[in-house]
Amino acid sequence: MNYRLVIFVFGELALILAALMCVPLFMSLGFNENSAAIGFAVAIAVCAGIGIVGAIVRPPKDKRDLRPSSGFAICGLFWVLISMIGALPFCVSKAIPNYIDALFETVSGFTTTGSSIIPAVESIPRSLLFWRALTQWIGGMGVLVFIIAILPRSDKMSTALAKAEIPGPQFGKLVSKLRFTSRILYAIYIGMTLMLVAILCICKMPVFDAFCHAFSTASTGGFSVLNGGIAAYDSIGIEVTLTIFMILFSVNFNIYYFILIGHVFKALKSEELICMLCIYLGVVAMVTANLCTAHTYANFGEALRYTSFNVASVMSTTGFGTGDFTTWPVLSQVLLVAVMCVGGSAGSTAGGLKVSRLLILSKSSHISLKQTLSPRSVRALKIDGKVIDEGTVANVRNFLILYVAIIVISTALISIGSKAYAAGNFETNFSAVIACFNNIGPGLGSVGPYGNYASYSIFAKIVLSVDMLLGRLEILPILLIFTPKSWKKPN
Amino acid sequence: MNYRLVIFVFGELALILAALMCVPLFMSLGFNENSAAIGFAVAIAVCAGIGIVGAIVRPPKDKRDLRPSSGFAICGLFWVLISMIGALPFCVSKAIPNYIDALFETVSGFTTTGSSIIPAVESIPRSLLFWRALTQWIGGMGVLVFIIAILPRSDKMSTALAKAEIPGPQFGKLVSKLRFTSRILYAIYIGMTLMLVAILCICKMPVFDAFCHAFSTASTGGFSVLNGGIAAYDSIGIEVTLTIFMILFSVNFNIYYFILIGHVFKALKSEELICMLCIYLGVVAMVTANLCTAHTYANFGEALRYTSFNVASVMSTTGFGTGDFTTWPVLSQVLLVAVMCVGGSAGSTAGGLKVSRLLILSKSSHISLKQTLSPRSVRALKIDGKVIDEGTVANVRNFLILYVAIIVISTALISIGSKAYAAGNFETNFSAVIACFNNIGPGLGSVGPYGNYASYSIFAKIVLSVDMLLGRLEILPILLIFTPKSWKKPN
Repeated sequence: MNYRLVIFVFGELALILAALMCVPLFMSLGFNENSAAIGFAVAIAVCAGIGIVGAIVRPPKDKRDLRPSSGFAICGLFWVLISMIGALPFCVSKAIPNYIDALFETVSGFTTTGSSIIPAVESIPRSLLFWRALTQWIGGMGVLVFIIAILPRSDKMSTALAKAEIPGPQFGKLVSKLRFTSRILYAIYIGMTLMLVAILCICKMPVFDAFCHAFSTASTGGFSVLNGGIAAYDSIGIEVTLTIFMILFSVNFNIYYFILIGHVFKALKSEELICMLCIYLGVVAMVTANLCTAHTYANFGEALRYTSFNVASVMSTTGFGTGDFTTWPVLSQVLLVAVMCVGGSAGSTAGGLKVSRLLILSKSSHISLKQTLSPRSVRALKIDGKVIDEGTVANVRNFLILYVAIIVISTALISIGSKAYAAGNFETNFSAVIACFNNIGPGLGSVGPYGNYASYSIFAKIVLSVDMLLGRLEILPILLIFTPKSWKKPN
Repeated sequence: MNYRLVIFVFGELALILAALMCVPLFMSLGFNENSAAIGFAVAIAVCAGIGIVGAIVRPPKDKRDLRPSSGFAICGLFWVLISMIGALPFCVSKAIPNYIDALFETVSGFTTTGSSIIPAVESIPRSLLFWRALTQWIGGMGVLVFIIAILPRSDKMSTALAKAEIPGPQFGKLVSKLRFTSRILYAIYIGMTLMLVAILCICKMPVFDAFCHAFSTASTGGFSVLNGGIAAYDSIGIEVTLTIFMILFSVNFNIYYFILIGHVFKALKSEELICMLCIYLGVVAMVTANLCTAHTYANFGEALRYTSFNVASVMSTTGFGTGDFTTWPVLSQVLLVAVMCVGGSAGSTAGGLKVSRLLILSKSSHISLKQTLSPRSVRALKIDGKVIDEGTVANVRNFLILYVAIIVISTALISIGSKAYAAGNFETNFSAVIACFNNIGPGLGSVGPYGNYASYSIFAKIVLSVDMLLGRLEILPILLIFTPKSWKKPN
């Protein structure tokens, strides 16, 4: 392992983090939030220190090679490290006095999860709320795509890092011109965020709130700046806008790229896009019907309003809540948990299993069944008319094994603390893991949209933080941090 | 599809069923249970009718070929049909007036699940309780292994049917001499059952109860003849005996075959056996520790007593209950649900994913991770020193996809009826599906060891019955019933 390179890259990353933290620092000075200002100053000083160390150990240009597995492991490590620095402002300012709590909140931000341990967000200084929203936005497109787009790097290393970073099973054609592409993706991301800010302002949301919520939506994170969440505005305009943008941000960004270069028809024919919209509309129809027969809301219109928002919210893995879906009938809850696990499209800011993986899993399963019927036939798995190679299918199937195993083990681990039995504990713990691992935020039971994660033990919060990282980085990079081979010297 | 053959085989199956029902018929006459006697008489008459039709359409010897997929589908269909006949005595005798309820109970019996809709079993005529236990015992080794052992068949067809029948991912060497082997397996099954009856009688269990509980244990079914279940005897001797035999009956029967022919060392070195015992002992240790720290029972001894019995009960997918584990702390419940899903060994009467599948999944996942680190290396998956071919591994991975999909879809389907929200509904429905699909019996919440399935709607009971069949026949045969190709004429 090339430790000098790791420290050097981390130094540069820390400097970028410091630059970004200047925004909330100035904000805290403007709002006269002195404790928050001290917090940001301390964090920026730490970043600067790491940046200087990185500059000192800077390796020569010909010694910047990485083996792929090291790329993965470093990527995982960087997310842990920036979360540890990003948590400092919360902790130093005493807004979240316990460091593990602050770390949980920051990991939740950078991984765009949106799980919170803060019972009443309005009591937190506004500059810290802005930082909380900003962590999500930074996490959204991935810190690594971010540095690839800005810092000069050899393409060899960029590919190794970006493979670990870009969500979804297929890395796609876009790899060939990686730095160029990541700049385009980033431009789309920034452009759509600003568009959302503008529309929210038109819908009479205050500018500060509009920025924070746009950051949360673009990253499919889900932190809000009001205790009551989006419901507090009670504005259909805002809800419809956010519903549309939550779905837009959980669409594969390659599709926007294709639309930009004029291949609109090709883009809209994407199987993943069609499948995602079908799942969304199907689940909205079923949940609305369920809420209507159970008379949860006054009429069909109300039921449709709450359903379309909340299903978009959990499926895009954003996690904004307008209605308290923990009180919905069981069928609706089961469907919500199911779409939580599905998540958005690959190549978007959404978490979850991803629709493309679901497509590959269901198609491969169908092909296996057909082969049982006619053992001699050979069928290829195609998506968008292109054959998916065996290796990708095997990886996706393997992903499912790890996915299920992590959910079971994490649920057991966070249950260690829960001593006394209470009805609903099982669903709370199970859904907490689902919500964190799929980077959604709120779950069922006492971690629902109007609950929070404060009551969990320190140990459970660490487990859930690891789950958020595992989910965001699609398992492998985090597992590889703990694999000695990742840290060996390249052959 | 060879319909004449299907009807012919089903006719013979019906006659065997009729012969078996004579035992509870005579019992009902002896106990003066007239309504039950009428029920058995009606069912036997129906069987005789089907047997006569089967004899009439008997196909000539050279027309008894089946394509494998048809074998699977027929096998699935037969389980449905014998359950429909087996439900008649309950329904006609008015012990379970609703036919769907009676069908649920019978499917639960034949699939060795042990889920019950009867709130108080002691109010049911004893001959019907005996029949209920007997259905499990018949289901235990599989109706098809059963007819293979007794009826003369061409080996070609036997293999097609037995492939659908014998639980577990690998069919093993035993196939070569199928009829001979199935007779040996059957002898082991009967021998061990009788041994258990004898030991239970020595432990002062009444003879009738001993037979019924031995049938339930041998088949890892779990129906009891007392309202209070095994706990009602309050006998450590009985609990220890049943614990040992539940584990023995969830061991791969090939191991007993190897021991019988003198390969004791080879048998005991089986990875699956060692892995199963390690899981059992590990979970017992964790749950006991959890119960002790939560002070659920008075002392360590009590906790160990309840844990060792109940973990054996759910892991072997038997489902006897002594303590009410729905009131245990959450960690214990999560661990119980996890071992419910694991189940016993392949080639035993247990249900669940099976330990051998778990071994293949975890090994293949580990190999995939290693290949990410060193892409050029090729590693073979070995169990007991033998390489498992790619096809088997792909099938097992595919099984996991279907397994997860069925659990999610079934949980949604049985939740359709549940209108009002109540804490614990989610875990009740989720665990009901887990308990039925893995052929265990009791779940958590209101379907726990002292609850029952009576409160579910007719629709939910049908869904759960299908889940029991899917679980018992390892998914494929039941899916193939609904595949038109299975019913086409052979090429």
